[in-house]
Amino acid sequence: MRLKDLAEHLGLSQTTVSRALNGYPEVNEATRLRVMETADRLGYRPNANALRLATGRASTIGLVLRGSTEFGPHMTEFLAGIGTGLAHKEMDILVSTVDNHEEEVATYRRLAASQSVNAVLLHSPTLHDDRARLLTKLRLPFVLHGRTEIDEPHAWFDIDNQGAMERAASHLIDLGHRRIALLNGIKGRTFAEHREAGYCTALMDRNVPIDRGLIANSSFTDEAAFRITQTMLELPQPPTAFLAGSMMTALGVFRAVRIAGLNLGEDVSMIAHDDVFPYLNADNMVPSMSTTRSSMRSAGVRIAELFQQLLAGKPVESIHELWPVDLVLRQSSGPAPTKTQASTAK
Amino acid sequence: MRLKDLAEHLGLSQTTVSRALNGYPEVNEATRLRVMETADRLGYRPNANALRLATGRASTIGLVLRGSTEFGPHMTEFLAGIGTGLAHKEMDILVSTVDNHEEEVATYRRLAASQSVNAVLLHSPTLHDDRARLLTKLRLPFVLHGRTEIDEPHAWFDIDNQGAMERAASHLIDLGHRRIALLNGIKGRTFAEHREAGYCTALMDRNVPIDRGLIANSSFTDEAAFRITQTMLELPQPPTAFLAGSMMTALGVFRAVRIAGLNLGEDVSMIAHDDVFPYLNADNMVPSMSTTRSSMRSAGVRIAELFQQLLAGKPVESIHELWPVDLVLRQSSGPAPTKTQASTAK
Repeated sequence: MRLKDLAEHLGLSQTTVSRALNGYPEVNEATRLRVMETADRLGYRPNANALRLATGRASTIGLVLRGSTEFGPHMTEFLAGIGTGLAHKEMDILVSTVDNHEEEVATYRRLAASQSVNAVLLHSPTLHDDRARLLTKLRLPFVLHGRTEIDEPHAWFDIDNQGAMERAASHLIDLGHRRIALLNGIKGRTFAEHREAGYCTALMDRNVPIDRGLIANSSFTDEAAFRITQTMLELPQPPTAFLAGSMMTALGVFRAVRIAGLNLGEDVSMIAHDDVFPYLNADNMVPSMSTTRSSMRSAGVRIAELFQQLLAGKPVESIHELWPVDLVLRQSSGPAPTKTQASTAK
Repeated sequence: MRLKDLAEHLGLSQTTVSRALNGYPEVNEATRLRVMETADRLGYRPNANALRLATGRASTIGLVLRGSTEFGPHMTEFLAGIGTGLAHKEMDILVSTVDNHEEEVATYRRLAASQSVNAVLLHSPTLHDDRARLLTKLRLPFVLHGRTEIDEPHAWFDIDNQGAMERAASHLIDLGHRRIALLNGIKGRTFAEHREAGYCTALMDRNVPIDRGLIANSSFTDEAAFRITQTMLELPQPPTAFLAGSMMTALGVFRAVRIAGLNLGEDVSMIAHDDVFPYLNADNMVPSMSTTRSSMRSAGVRIAELFQQLLAGKPVESIHELWPVDLVLRQSSGPAPTKTQASTAK
């Protein structure tokens, strides 16, 4: 239902209906109530363009971030993409920061009640994300970056984390590696679960036993990866290959490997997930880094386009997009060392 | 002037005045016009808290970014600080992306006309920044991150870029360096001009001739720094020390130095400006990096506090803050090589 249809149904001009919906003083209260009630009954969802015409405000996408943890290089790249995609579209991003889940929920309620945003960018989902259900209930349109398993139809965009990790792990096994560490993201997050599923599938398909001691979950920082790698390298049977969850993780693995006196790409192999940070170029590292590659910035640009479709009224059921991930082989991954080599290197 | 004073002057309740100022339909048009006219005449500036009570919206800080260039690691760290500072304060950040100066100006006009924001965060100023003048004219309160030389009183926060560069350059000269390269930011930006002034002061104070060929201006990327350093190392009299404008710049210098077969901290020295990125730790680099250090995130946290003061009515003339910068010496800076050492290394 468009504004035009609603106006015709009410026998009012589009301008009057639009102003009534937006609480403008030129419309008397009785009319405003009639318009609101009818809009609600007929399920009218204001078109962002109509809203912009009425208010002079740009369309606004809400983004709620956990201040302490979610501002980081991944979010910047993503925001840069969104920002690039929204330029010239008269669309702004409203960033609210919160400390925890309860505050995040309260913020969505506030954004809905105050009509501060036209839609929400939901990110970092868990496998069964109650925030997606809440937004549906609040009638706040949203695009999910990532995936969640809920019944409510919704718009989403994701990259194929499972397929990427399956390919990377399979490649390492084909090179002779049997002890492959997975430095994964925070447990429960969909992307981390998908990556673990891809890793396990590769190992099971090739009859390599899964050792839970080689799977670590943490945030993607140099420091965390450094400590995890040092611990794993001291195992009786240390890993000969690492799957690093991000380029930041790769920096920490690299540092621990170097301090242990091992050569990356010879004694130990690594494939890192590369979100394509402009200042951490996998090609420029020494040795150059093998990666599963998917540009976070491009994802942001694309999601900005999906928001335009959403606000133009495209049904959420038809806004589903899954991007494949490249496997790019460089110097940091090679054949597994023979036992002799490995013990000499130590 | 507070809302209370304006209401008393008008003989109306604070609620009525607040609703009138925000165009609520409960207030008739004649009253609204009278309130607006009086508020304008008496120079009343709505207090953010009053606005929030009236509208149910959070206070909003506007931030305009150039999509193609300004989303990057520095802006993220800064935003993370702002976000952390604004959490629990019911303040949001409205991010608009633009491509050029004209679009930025148009966006400020739009934000002012639509009353979408309570204040603006102005950043990356030039020495004589017309955007600061525009915001004053539009009566959009703002805090400037950095400094500009305009007559209009305004709130600002900056770090002592000039002092930092002067200390770093002086230290290198004291270590015997005479050919010191300055890899600086984009020409015309205040921080870059301040850094150049500090660098030149140090050289002049110690009678070291200034060679413009050793001063480069670019954006702070690994790539740009790599190319500039390669070119400088091929000079007949190459620099023996580098002042790198950021940790990203330092990565590029480091790469070019390594490829030239030189050892950092021995054949060539470097002091980099460190905005304290959590994933690029100067202590963890090999060799560890000497830095001028000032946390971009802490600056953001502080600026969020300054916004609260601004919106609570503190006069802009008393919101001026200049932070000192640490000089942290580590392994990457050392005595200048003797001529023999330098030619052997080549």
